[in-house]
Amino acid sequence: MTRLRIACAGLGRMGKRHAVHFAEQTPRAHLVAVSSPDETELEWAREHLGPLGVTVYKKYDDMLKHEGLQAVVVASATAVHAEQAIKAMDADMHVLCEKPLSTSVEISQSVLDAANRKPHLKILCGFSRRFDASYRDAHTKMLAGTIGRPSVIRSQTCDKLDPSGFFVAYAQFSGGIFVDCSIHDIDLALWFYSEDGKPGPMVKSVSAVGITAVEPGLRKYNDRDNAVGLVEFHDGRIAYFYASRMMAAGQEDSTEIIGTKGKLTVNTQPQINLVNVYEADGVRRELPQHYFDRFREAFVTEAREFTDCCLDDKPVPLKLEGAVQAVRIGYALQEALISGKKIVFDEEGQRVERAAL
Amino acid sequence: MTRLRIACAGLGRMGKRHAVHFAEQTPRAHLVAVSSPDETELEWAREHLGPLGVTVYKKYDDMLKHEGLQAVVVASATAVHAEQAIKAMDADMHVLCEKPLSTSVEISQSVLDAANRKPHLKILCGFSRRFDASYRDAHTKMLAGTIGRPSVIRSQTCDKLDPSGFFVAYAQFSGGIFVDCSIHDIDLALWFYSEDGKPGPMVKSVSAVGITAVEPGLRKYNDRDNAVGLVEFHDGRIAYFYASRMMAAGQEDSTEIIGTKGKLTVNTQPQINLVNVYEADGVRRELPQHYFDRFREAFVTEAREFTDCCLDDKPVPLKLEGAVQAVRIGYALQEALISGKKIVFDEEGQRVERAAL
Amino acid sequence: MTRLRIACAGLGRMGKRHAVHFAEQTPRAHLVAVSSPDETELEWAREHLGPLGVTVYKKYDDMLKHEGLQAVVVASATAVHAEQAIKAMDADMHVLCEKPLSTSVEISQSVLDAANRKPHLKILCGFSRRFDASYRDAHTKMLAGTIGRPSVIRSQTCDKLDPSGFFVAYAQFSGGIFVDCSIHDIDLALWFYSEDGKPGPMVKSVSAVGITAVEPGLRKYNDRDNAVGLVEFHDGRIAYFYASRMMAAGQEDSTEIIGTKGKLTVNTQPQINLVNVYEADGVRRELPQHYFDRFREAFVTEAREFTDCCLDDKPVPLKLEGAVQAVRIGYALQEALISGKKIVFDEEGQRVERAAL
Amino acid sequence: MTRLRIACAGLGRMGKRHAVHFAEQTPRAHLVAVSSPDETELEWAREHLGPLGVTVYKKYDDMLKHEGLQAVVVASATAVHAEQAIKAMDADMHVLCEKPLSTSVEISQSVLDAANRKPHLKILCGFSRRFDASYRDAHTKMLAGTIGRPSVIRSQTCDKLDPSGFFVAYAQFSGGIFVDCSIHDIDLALWFYSEDGKPGPMVKSVSAVGITAVEPGLRKYNDRDNAVGLVEFHDGRIAYFYASRMMAAGQEDSTEIIGTKGKLTVNTQPQINLVNVYEADGVRRELPQHYFDRFREAFVTEAREFTDCCLDDKPVPLKLEGAVQAVRIGYALQEALISGKKIVFDEEGQRVERAAL
Repeated sequence: MTRLRIACAGLGRMGKRHAVHFAEQTPRAHLVAVSSPDETELEWAREHLGPLGVTVYKKYDDMLKHEGLQAVVVASATAVHAEQAIKAMDADMHVLCEKPLSTSVEISQSVLDAANRKPHLKILCGFSRRFDASYRDAHTKMLAGTIGRPSVIRSQTCDKLDPSGFFVAYAQFSGGIFVDCSIHDIDLALWFYSEDGKPGPMVKSVSAVGITAVEPGLRKYNDRDNAVGLVEFHDGRIAYFYASRMMAAGQEDSTEIIGTKGKLTVNTQPQINLVNVYEADGVRRELPQHYFDRFREAFVTEAREFTDCCLDDKPVPLKLEGAVQAVRIGYALQEALISGKKIVFDEEGQRVERAAL
Repeated sequence: MTRLRIACAGLGRMGKRHAVHFAEQTPRAHLVAVSSPDETELEWAREHLGPLGVTVYKKYDDMLKHEGLQAVVVASATAVHAEQAIKAMDADMHVLCEKPLSTSVEISQSVLDAANRKPHLKILCGFSRRFDASYRDAHTKMLAGTIGRPSVIRSQTCDKLDPSGFFVAYAQFSGGIFVDCSIHDIDLALWFYSEDGKPGPMVKSVSAVGITAVEPGLRKYNDRDNAVGLVEFHDGRIAYFYASRMMAAGQEDSTEIIGTKGKLTVNTQPQINLVNVYEADGVRRELPQHYFDRFREAFVTEAREFTDCCLDDKPVPLKLEGAVQAVRIGYALQEALISGKKIVFDEEGQRVERAAL
Repeated sequence: MTRLRIACAGLGRMGKRHAVHFAEQTPRAHLVAVSSPDETELEWAREHLGPLGVTVYKKYDDMLKHEGLQAVVVASATAVHAEQAIKAMDADMHVLCEKPLSTSVEISQSVLDAANRKPHLKILCGFSRRFDASYRDAHTKMLAGTIGRPSVIRSQTCDKLDPSGFFVAYAQFSGGIFVDCSIHDIDLALWFYSEDGKPGPMVKSVSAVGITAVEPGLRKYNDRDNAVGLVEFHDGRIAYFYASRMMAAGQEDSTEIIGTKGKLTVNTQPQINLVNVYEADGVRRELPQHYFDRFREAFVTEAREFTDCCLDDKPVPLKLEGAVQAVRIGYALQEALISGKKIVFDEEGQRVERAAL
Repeated sequence: MTRLRIACAGLGRMGKRHAVHFAEQTPRAHLVAVSSPDETELEWAREHLGPLGVTVYKKYDDMLKHEGLQAVVVASATAVHAEQAIKAMDADMHVLCEKPLSTSVEISQSVLDAANRKPHLKILCGFSRRFDASYRDAHTKMLAGTIGRPSVIRSQTCDKLDPSGFFVAYAQFSGGIFVDCSIHDIDLALWFYSEDGKPGPMVKSVSAVGITAVEPGLRKYNDRDNAVGLVEFHDGRIAYFYASRMMAAGQEDSTEIIGTKGKLTVNTQPQINLVNVYEADGVRRELPQHYFDRFREAFVTEAREFTDCCLDDKPVPLKLEGAVQAVRIGYALQEALISGKKIVFDEEGQRVERAAL
């Protein structure tokens, strides 16, 4: 059996998981190398991946030259996603790049431009929810006409409250709550609103409000801990998004797709498993504590399907244009959140200046 | 508007509620009198019902002679249900009698015999669940063929744990957990298994097991705090019942009606209202704490429909034969629980002795 | 027992219910009169309320002169709410006025002004959700500190799809979807965000988007069939509202109150009762079909508590200032929905003009 | 990295899954061989497992001699479970044997006897629910004291209605519905009732009733399509089980563990995923269609943990004594179901004859 020789750049929280998924859960892939600039991460890799025959690199560029390498997972810091993805494409590698491509629209576009120059490569932006069984079931039902024309989407990505202050430090580089969290919801809206194989409808306007209810320190990085955004599309549909860093019970990522004949909901009753506890003060169920608790299986599916696409030369299930469009909308929402101003786009995607309104 | 002149015997926990329902929530009824042997209850009545023009009697027999009285609610201690109901019939009154008619099969039968002598009277045994909107919806769906032929019923009546010891004292007179609690579930089984207007199928056998997990004191009254019973009917259907005095979270009365083409459940996800609380340890909802919290509206509906039946000369929605059959099954279950022996009945309802098996 | 002599103006969908609630479900009230300009409604009243001794009037002004009348329910068309309420106050009557006071902010304010001139009268705007057991439980838990400081509210009022075109005709007079539907959600936000007995925080900005997914005819009345609005308050809290006329399964009015330490949800899993149906294609539960199915009990509680306030001279549970504030926000949301522009208010409640931004 | 060399006997429905799990999802295992007497299954194996380097045998005995083999999964027909397991032990192999060990108590015991002669081998009976995340969470909470002393267990294994008649043919060899289905529930009861590392309490009595609601053909094999059983244990606890072949909506395996201070439920609200569909007739969710849909992850966990136990010489998580005890109880329930008689055991596990009662 031929297996895809793949390497993983970045061994932080997400990188470790990608590496393990490709090493242990993806039968058609062979993880041959990893890289990280961080000594602690490298040590972890030597201990856990070394015995599996994985070569450990300190430098991404060195890893790229690994004998026989065919594909790269870019799971490093967001700031270097684009650069590493483009380098891999230049080296003629397939790329699975963690979201977002970049917090900048222009840089995201440059990844797309690079991909367009190498149409034989498989370039996938890792919007994990697209690989989740529940979202896929909802999408299949939508395509089957169950809900008529989907017209309104409500979607939220809400993290568990983390009193350690992690989110404040993280906000410096995350691109803000809409780019970091809502990017998933934006991608879902584009997915459910796509027609005829297009990457999704054109955005018409965005508005947003937000607060710092628990982390006033976020303000210095132009971020908020709770934010709500409205998005209009030029095809007469709307979406609204809520992102939060303040959920008491755990991760709450839920979505409603409301159509002219029905509605699909995903995870509006969150739960970590099938257990309920009956106690003196009522019935209780627990929630996933982190993003990964909820989407673990989706990440494995993503790894397997990316591998299949590379080995079998099949198109990847997400168009890269959509990933750029998602950054464009997320970036605009973040700007609207901070400026308090509504941002309007024409049908070609150009911003309409206020004076022209 | 003509209103039904009604009186209420017994002003304990249930009696008070019946009195108030007829006084305040039943527009076509006029509560004219109440009776109780208990001075505290009488005081309550003088204070709360006196201003509404209700006459307060110490003796049931005196109340029965109240000028113009047409109907009586028997909500006194179970031990006097039958005697009071029969006296009321003898006085030509309609009767709404709390369940069970009696803890004795023979005495229950004597109430039915009395009723059969006065076919113009409306005699209703108050199986409140029959008036609950959810049970009625389930029954309507069953009749519509939604689940095919109902064949297996699981039903439970489970009270909240009451550490005061109340249930031990109560067990002296309750007839035991199957007669006191499961009688409701038995009645439901008879209702869902009835065909062609019959009061329900004939019982073929009963078996039971039980324990005293929290109240060993119940043993001296031949009772248990948790019990499970199996019932076979001669028409090839079965039912199984669970009764408990040990629920931590609140009242849990739930039912499943399993048919050849589907299943109906009632209250398998108990909740007191539509609120969920998300906290650090999960999502929590509260439960009804007592029987009345769950069935409050059903009691009001019962009062109104009984009144309508009396005033409009319509048949009551439950056949009294069924109430006697329910006591027969409950009594046999209780006996099986204590003796550890299976009890078998022939198709005429006669017990088949062990030797004959 | 002294009973409140009350009359009901308007006998449409809501008026009939109010009349029946006061006549049959409110022991301390005595419905003595009703009025309607509509002959069909009058006929209904003669048939159903006549036997209860209720006098039926064609003219509101005549009804106001009914001997001994003490209070009036204004349940007529929204266009005459304010006028009738003010007339009743001038006649020294207590008033329970259906929501909204008016679709106009100024006229709503005139009702408040009239009330302020007669402080001895009980004037209640009928925000029925305030009387719903689930919302009250949530509010009580919020006050107890269960969720920390409530900071974000999501609330929706979504009607079942009615393909008859009713909503198009109705839109001419309703004030638009935000004034007609979201007014409830706005009131809830004011309620949960109130502190120290104030009627709620001051609005800082509103933004909105909407579409006509199923009823393009709504556009000629400046209305939409789906709309989402964002509201910022000057105290650093936000709320977002969704209103729709397009729910396939039934009425879906749900609310989340998100605080710094937890979250309360009301009706995020809607259901008409406790029945689940298991069939070949899954498990199904049904929903309330209309607003009244969901809030029937709340309307009865409202009638009883209003009666108690009048008879016992207690303050009504909602401040009338809040009802005016709710119209102000709803009206601004509707304007933002149609104009596409964000509307900003200063801390005194004055609109800040665009030039000043 | 050293990997466990394992082979799989039987390539039917379950065997295929075990083979794939060990081949693709168990990083520390190396599936080296499979065997099946069935030509179609062998063909499947040559096509799907051949490319992975797996040797395909027609004869179990030949497979046992595969060079370097260390462990065997017995996933063949129940009738040969015991024989193959014992042969593997004789060949000094670790064994993961599908449940039940046998439909006969004596033969089950012979497997245990063989295992006791080879204490250095890891012998695991594959009760998959023990490896399910939800059941494990419930068990952990129970051990933590969350529900006090577990005293009553309700558990059911209910298959989706299969109108093909499969279950009739299957009944010839399955041992009957209690041995085939309820064996899982019995094992769960033993697990939750175990103390001090014992394999579970001693059974005191069993009773059962059942019907053939949809498959009268089952009677000729002494089986039923719906059955309910009661089990008493000598330590004063009880359990009751429901098994069915008639669920309309899908697989419904749910469990309640009721303790003196609370209750744990597992899967009392079954669902295949997190999607809800809102349509004109209500809100619908889908169910797992088959046992494997529900427990897929548990099987993978089972494969990994068994591998770890073999490689790291750790005790397997289930005592084999319990598996024999489960067959004993299941067999007795089946006998009680057919004979209609209660079966009683003394504290040493010997049946007490009727005459002795």
